[in-house]
Amino acid sequence: MGSRRKPYESARDRVARHMRARRAALELSQEKLAELCELHRTYIGSIERSERNVSLDNVERIATVLGLDIADLLAASE
Amino acid sequence: MGSRRKPYESARDRVARHMRARRAALELSQEKLAELCELHRTYIGSIERSERNVSLDNVERIATVLGLDIADLLAASE
Repeated sequence: MGSRRKPYESARDRVARHMRARRAALELSQEKLAELCELHRTYIGSIERSERNVSLDNVERIATVLGLDIADLLAASE
Repeated sequence: MGSRRKPYESARDRVARHMRARRAALELSQEKLAELCELHRTYIGSIERSERNVSLDNVERIATVLGLDIADLLAASE
Protein backbone atom coordinates (compact mmCIF):
# COMPACT_ATOMS: atom_id res chain seq x y z
CA MET A 1 0.00 0.00 0.00
CA GLY A 2 1.01 3.63 0.21
CA SER A 3 1.35 3.65 -3.55
CA ARG A 4 0.48 6.78 -5.41
CA ARG A 5 -2.45 6.66 -7.76
CA LYS A 6 -1.38 6.20 -11.37
CA PRO A 7 -2.68 8.73 -13.88
CA TYR A 8 -5.91 7.37 -15.31
CA GLU A 9 -5.51 5.21 -18.41
CA SER A 10 -8.67 5.00 -20.51
CA ALA A 11 -10.25 1.71 -21.50
CA ARG A 12 -9.36 2.42 -25.14
CA ASP A 13 -5.72 2.99 -24.22
CA ARG A 14 -5.58 -0.16 -22.12
CA VAL A 15 -6.95 -2.35 -24.89
CA ALA A 16 -4.60 -0.72 -27.41
CA ARG A 17 -1.56 -1.23 -25.20
CA HIS A 18 -2.33 -4.87 -24.38
CA MET A 19 -3.14 -5.68 -28.01
CA ARG A 20 0.13 -4.26 -29.30
CA ALA A 21 2.17 -6.02 -26.62
CA ARG A 22 0.48 -9.37 -27.11
CA ARG A 23 0.59 -9.14 -30.87
CA ALA A 24 4.33 -8.42 -30.67
CA ALA A 25 4.86 -11.33 -28.26
CA LEU A 26 3.05 -13.64 -30.66
CA GLU A 27 4.85 -12.10 -33.65
CA LEU A 28 1.53 -11.46 -35.34
CA SER A 29 1.12 -8.67 -37.89
CA GLN A 30 -1.98 -6.45 -37.74
CA GLU A 31 -2.95 -8.08 -41.01
CA LYS A 32 -2.73 -11.59 -39.61
CA LEU A 33 -4.58 -10.64 -36.43
CA ALA A 34 -7.31 -9.01 -38.51
CA GLU A 35 -7.63 -12.14 -40.61
CA LEU A 36 -7.89 -14.39 -37.55
CA CYS A 37 -10.50 -12.08 -36.02
CA GLU A 38 -12.37 -11.71 -39.30
CA LEU A 39 -12.08 -7.96 -38.92
CA HIS A 40 -10.51 -5.42 -41.25
CA ARG A 41 -6.82 -4.59 -40.93
CA THR A 42 -7.45 -0.85 -40.82
CA TYR A 43 -10.00 -1.44 -38.07
CA ILE A 44 -7.40 -3.33 -35.99
CA GLY A 45 -4.96 -0.48 -36.63
CA SER A 46 -7.42 2.14 -35.47
CA ILE A 47 -8.17 0.17 -32.27
CA GLU A 48 -4.44 0.03 -31.56
CA ARG A 49 -4.33 3.82 -31.92
CA SER A 50 -7.23 4.18 -29.44
CA GLU A 51 -9.33 5.78 -32.17
CA ARG A 52 -12.24 3.38 -31.94
CA ASN A 53 -15.00 2.99 -29.43
CA VAL A 54 -14.95 -0.78 -29.87
CA SER A 55 -17.88 -2.93 -28.83
CA LEU A 56 -17.62 -5.56 -26.13
CA ASP A 57 -18.23 -8.37 -28.64
CA ASN A 58 -15.28 -7.27 -30.76
CA VAL A 59 -12.96 -6.83 -27.78
CA GLU A 60 -13.94 -10.33 -26.70
CA ARG A 61 -13.27 -11.71 -30.17
CA ILE A 62 -9.82 -10.10 -30.25
CA ALA A 63 -9.02 -11.41 -26.74
CA THR A 64 -9.96 -14.93 -27.77
CA VAL A 65 -7.73 -14.83 -30.86
CA LEU A 66 -4.86 -13.45 -28.76
CA GLY A 67 -5.35 -16.24 -26.21
CA LEU A 68 -6.25 -13.75 -23.47
CA ASP A 69 -9.21 -13.28 -21.19
CA ILE A 70 -11.08 -10.06 -21.95
CA ALA A 71 -10.29 -8.84 -18.42
CA ASP A 72 -6.57 -9.04 -19.33
CA LEU A 73 -7.14 -6.62 -22.22
CA LEU A 74 -8.74 -4.16 -19.81
CA ALA A 75 -6.17 -4.49 -17.02
CA ALA A 76 -4.72 -1.23 -15.72
CA SER A 77 -0.96 -0.79 -15.95
CA GLU A 78 0.95 -2.04 -12.90
CA MET B 1 -4.44 -25.03 -9.30
CA GLY B 2 -6.10 -28.28 -10.17
CA SER B 3 -9.36 -26.42 -10.55
CA ARG B 4 -11.70 -27.35 -13.32
CA ARG B 5 -12.33 -24.81 -16.00
CA LYS B 6 -15.54 -22.86 -15.42
CA PRO B 7 -18.02 -22.79 -18.27
CA TYR B 8 -17.29 -19.71 -20.36
CA GLU B 9 -19.12 -16.56 -19.30
CA SER B 10 -19.42 -13.99 -22.08
CA ALA B 11 -18.26 -10.41 -21.69
CA ARG B 12 -21.87 -9.24 -21.92
CA ASP B 13 -22.89 -11.61 -19.13
CA ARG B 14 -19.99 -10.53 -16.94
CA VAL B 15 -20.82 -6.86 -17.26
CA ALA B 16 -24.51 -7.57 -16.64
CA ARG B 17 -23.79 -9.64 -13.53
CA HIS B 18 -21.36 -7.12 -12.01
CA MET B 19 -23.66 -4.18 -12.78
CA ARG B 20 -26.66 -5.80 -11.11
CA ALA B 21 -24.63 -6.81 -8.05
CA ARG B 22 -23.01 -3.43 -7.64
CA ARG B 23 -26.22 -1.53 -8.25
CA ALA B 24 -27.90 -3.64 -5.57
CA ALA B 25 -25.02 -3.06 -3.15
CA LEU B 26 -25.30 0.68 -3.71
CA GLU B 27 -29.12 0.50 -3.55
CA LEU B 28 -29.35 2.29 -6.87
CA SER B 29 -32.34 1.82 -9.15
CA GLN B 30 -31.78 1.35 -12.90
CA GLU B 31 -33.39 4.74 -13.29
CA LYS B 32 -30.96 6.43 -10.94
CA LEU B 33 -27.96 4.70 -12.49
CA ALA B 34 -29.15 5.74 -15.94
CA GLU B 35 -29.50 9.32 -14.78
CA LEU B 36 -26.01 9.37 -13.27
CA CYS B 37 -24.55 7.86 -16.46
CA GLU B 38 -26.59 10.16 -18.69
CA LEU B 39 -27.89 7.09 -20.49
CA HIS B 40 -31.45 5.91 -20.98
CA ARG B 41 -33.08 3.67 -18.37
CA THR B 42 -34.19 1.12 -20.95
CA TYR B 43 -30.64 1.03 -22.30
CA ILE B 44 -29.29 0.22 -18.80
CA GLY B 45 -31.96 -2.47 -18.48
CA SER B 46 -31.01 -4.06 -21.78
CA ILE B 47 -27.32 -4.10 -20.80
CA GLU B 48 -28.26 -5.85 -17.56
CA ARG B 49 -30.09 -8.48 -19.64
CA SER B 50 -26.98 -8.97 -21.83
CA GLU B 51 -28.96 -7.80 -24.84
CA ARG B 52 -26.58 -5.03 -25.85
CA ASN B 53 -23.22 -5.06 -27.50
CA VAL B 54 -22.11 -2.07 -25.43
CA SER B 55 -19.17 0.06 -26.47
CA LEU B 56 -16.05 0.39 -24.37
CA ASP B 57 -16.73 4.08 -23.69
CA ASN B 58 -20.14 3.30 -22.22
CA VAL B 59 -18.87 0.38 -20.12
CA GLU B 60 -16.20 2.74 -18.80
CA ARG B 61 -18.76 5.40 -18.01
CA ILE B 62 -20.92 2.92 -16.10
CA ALA B 63 -17.89 1.60 -14.20
CA THR B 64 -16.95 5.13 -13.15
CA VAL B 65 -20.44 5.90 -11.87
CA LEU B 66 -20.49 2.60 -9.97
CA GLY B 67 -17.10 3.40 -8.42
CA LEU B 68 -15.46 0.42 -10.11
CA ASP B 69 -12.55 -0.04 -12.43
CA ILE B 70 -13.64 -1.23 -15.87
CA ALA B 71 -11.58 -4.41 -15.37
CA ASP B 72 -13.81 -5.22 -12.36
CA LEU B 73 -16.88 -5.15 -14.62
CA LEU B 74 -15.21 -7.67 -16.92
CA ALA B 75 -13.88 -9.98 -14.21
CA ALA B 76 -14.73 -13.66 -14.65
CA SER B 77 -16.68 -15.34 -11.88
CA GLU B 78 -14.50 -16.90 -9.18
